[in-house]
Amino acid sequence: MRGKMKFGLNIPTRLAFGAGELKNIHNMVMPGRHALVVVSSGRAMKSNGYLDVLLAGLERAGIKSVVFDKAIPNPIRQHVMEGTEMCKENGCDFVIGLGGGSSIDTAKAIAITAAMGGDFWDYVQGGTGGGKPVTKALPIVAIPSTAGTGTEIDPWGVITNEQTKEKIGFGTPLVFPYLAIVDPELMLTVPPKLTAYQGFDAFFHAAEGYISLAHSPISDLYALEAIRLLYKYLPVAVADGNNMWARIKVAWASTLAGMVESTSCCTGEHALEHAMSAFYPELPHGAGLIAISGAYFKTFKNDVMKRYMKMAEKMRQVKSARPSDFLDALEVMKRSCGVDDVRLSDWGVKMDDFDRFVDNAVATGGSMLELDPRFLNRYELIGIYADSYK
Amino acid sequence: MRGKMKFGLNIPTRLAFGAGELKNIHNMVMPGRHALVVVSSGRAMKSNGYLDVLLAGLERAGIKSVVFDKAIPNPIRQHVMEGTEMCKENGCDFVIGLGGGSSIDTAKAIAITAAMGGDFWDYVQGGTGGGKPVTKALPIVAIPSTAGTGTEIDPWGVITNEQTKEKIGFGTPLVFPYLAIVDPELMLTVPPKLTAYQGFDAFFHAAEGYISLAHSPISDLYALEAIRLLYKYLPVAVADGNNMWARIKVAWASTLAGMVESTSCCTGEHALEHAMSAFYPELPHGAGLIAISGAYFKTFKNDVMKRYMKMAEKMRQVKSARPSDFLDALEVMKRSCGVDDVRLSDWGVKMDDFDRFVDNAVATGGSMLELDPRFLNRYELIGIYADSYK
Repeated sequence: MRGKMKFGLNIPTRLAFGAGELKNIHNMVMPGRHALVVVSSGRAMKSNGYLDVLLAGLERAGIKSVVFDKAIPNPIRQHVMEGTEMCKENGCDFVIGLGGGSSIDTAKAIAITAAMGGDFWDYVQGGTGGGKPVTKALPIVAIPSTAGTGTEIDPWGVITNEQTKEKIGFGTPLVFPYLAIVDPELMLTVPPKLTAYQGFDAFFHAAEGYISLAHSPISDLYALEAIRLLYKYLPVAVADGNNMWARIKVAWASTLAGMVESTSCCTGEHALEHAMSAFYPELPHGAGLIAISGAYFKTFKNDVMKRYMKMAEKMRQVKSARPSDFLDALEVMKRSCGVDDVRLSDWGVKMDDFDRFVDNAVATGGSMLELDPRFLNRYELIGIYADSYK
Repeated sequence: MRGKMKFGLNIPTRLAFGAGELKNIHNMVMPGRHALVVVSSGRAMKSNGYLDVLLAGLERAGIKSVVFDKAIPNPIRQHVMEGTEMCKENGCDFVIGLGGGSSIDTAKAIAITAAMGGDFWDYVQGGTGGGKPVTKALPIVAIPSTAGTGTEIDPWGVITNEQTKEKIGFGTPLVFPYLAIVDPELMLTVPPKLTAYQGFDAFFHAAEGYISLAHSPISDLYALEAIRLLYKYLPVAVADGNNMWARIKVAWASTLAGMVESTSCCTGEHALEHAMSAFYPELPHGAGLIAISGAYFKTFKNDVMKRYMKMAEKMRQVKSARPSDFLDALEVMKRSCGVDDVRLSDWGVKMDDFDRFVDNAVATGGSMLELDPRFLNRYELIGIYADSYK
């Protein structure tokens, strides 16, 4: 890796990080005068009052808004198109995503389609996507209520085509949010299991980005810090959701892991998981990652030995002599977060699915598979699913 | 420091880092069609062929250019105004700074004055500056040929008013370069002494930003990595200027330290040095910093003990139990770079100067003095100069 000293860096997003920052939104510069506010179809953002705080802050700043409340976990193409329609009808000139990754990713997809016209799937690269170039997008403000996706500070989104069963990532620097407000107060009410799933999503953004062929000195810096923080604080946040200090550290680690995605890239683990939740939308993304992570990372144990040891050192804070230290630390972390028992079969996954999972991963996530430390063939990919199955 | 978890981050500059990147400039997107190219009045950029490479690359990309070759170390207001004139006369729509910090800072100042009109000093905050708000600036491309200032990726510049003997920093997000091309090949010919002076400038950006009241989790991450890299690689680059690997590491550390300046801020050490080189323009900025650094950092040894130990640990890679470990490591680093013998008297500084130095530092660098871990009174500031004098 000694020669890997040619790289780029560009994260234009303005970050406002801190407990209570959402209440300060009226003092922040917005990128438009009329917002489409995208929130989840669930009740959390409404019953917790976060949506009200946001809308009151916008009003105080003299900014008009209209709410689109249909974003769902594993957001779908149809909702992107409905949101785009509402955006156009109301003459909105920017899009705010408030909630989990699904709200923000839906906001990003709407921002593209509202500016470009046509169908969102026209602009998706890979699978049955039309692959048209994206040359403009409405500006985006991202306000995550979970710590996991990092989408508030990266140029990526993931939308599922519910007709074709494709869960495909899209990406363009145009959907880097203009502003990300990361307010850990919004995360206090996330239940333990979801806190763990989402935190592990962030952990894998960092760990995959660290072993990815796309890694660079700057992504390494972000990744190792995110890994250190999550190993230390995620179990605390899972055990005591009201521990503000742990929530703050986990939120910051998640944003750092998003900066890894903006400077390096996810690898095959994410491609393999997207394929699973494309067929089983109820399977939480983080749970799917946790389920296959042991087998996935074992695969490259001898390919990037020093990087595994470095990750283990950041986690355990002691010198590591073996790449397997990372695999051991990962298992410890799963246990201490209470997610060492994730069973794919609980979500309906069957062994017969592995073939179509691999087909789907290759078709829709090929670029991530190409960034694995070593390129895996079809049988190795099936082997990861098989090793993970229980 | 436990509560310090509310912060912002915004570094919009696109970074292209790597040996040989300048030769690749014709493939990069430029922010305009007609460049004012600012280079030093010295011969280095011309005799080494870097200016030719730049101009040929621009021509190949169909971009017109005109060269302003008057930037001097400790750049002055008069040259900013001459460059602005040339910029306007030729209808340039962006400014490229190629060379040391002086060329890039001159380019930044021209970018402001060409867009805003009037005199550059109208827009300077502090001292006799007019304090007018800056609302626009031409886009800037920064191509450093030295590793030290970090100005390629920060929103700051320093210009001296030669009439009033004020060396004042200016800053606005509008002068974040649009693009920074950091090509360590351009640094291979920097002589050992200047390599050390410039490298220590970067080191102090990181160390000051780390103990500054303005520090944050993201600036800490950048600062500690820059400190680690410079302690390890700066002596190598000083001893063997052709060691490309060391040049790369030092260049990256310098850019990281620039990112510290963009997320935290320099402290009183820089204010005290600017005052010296305002009166003694021949005194290299880095040499001035080195001369006062021992006394400066000793002052806060008991105020931010954990931070001193953390810096020492990054430098020596062993656990630290005493804040003075940092002071010791700093002295070792000076010796290993051959700059432990910098004498202010060699540059003409007299003990009688201390009073006017302090007046100047307070008048022009007050905001940096306010970010010291503990606010120093006039006598303590004079004491730092006195302790440093030989």
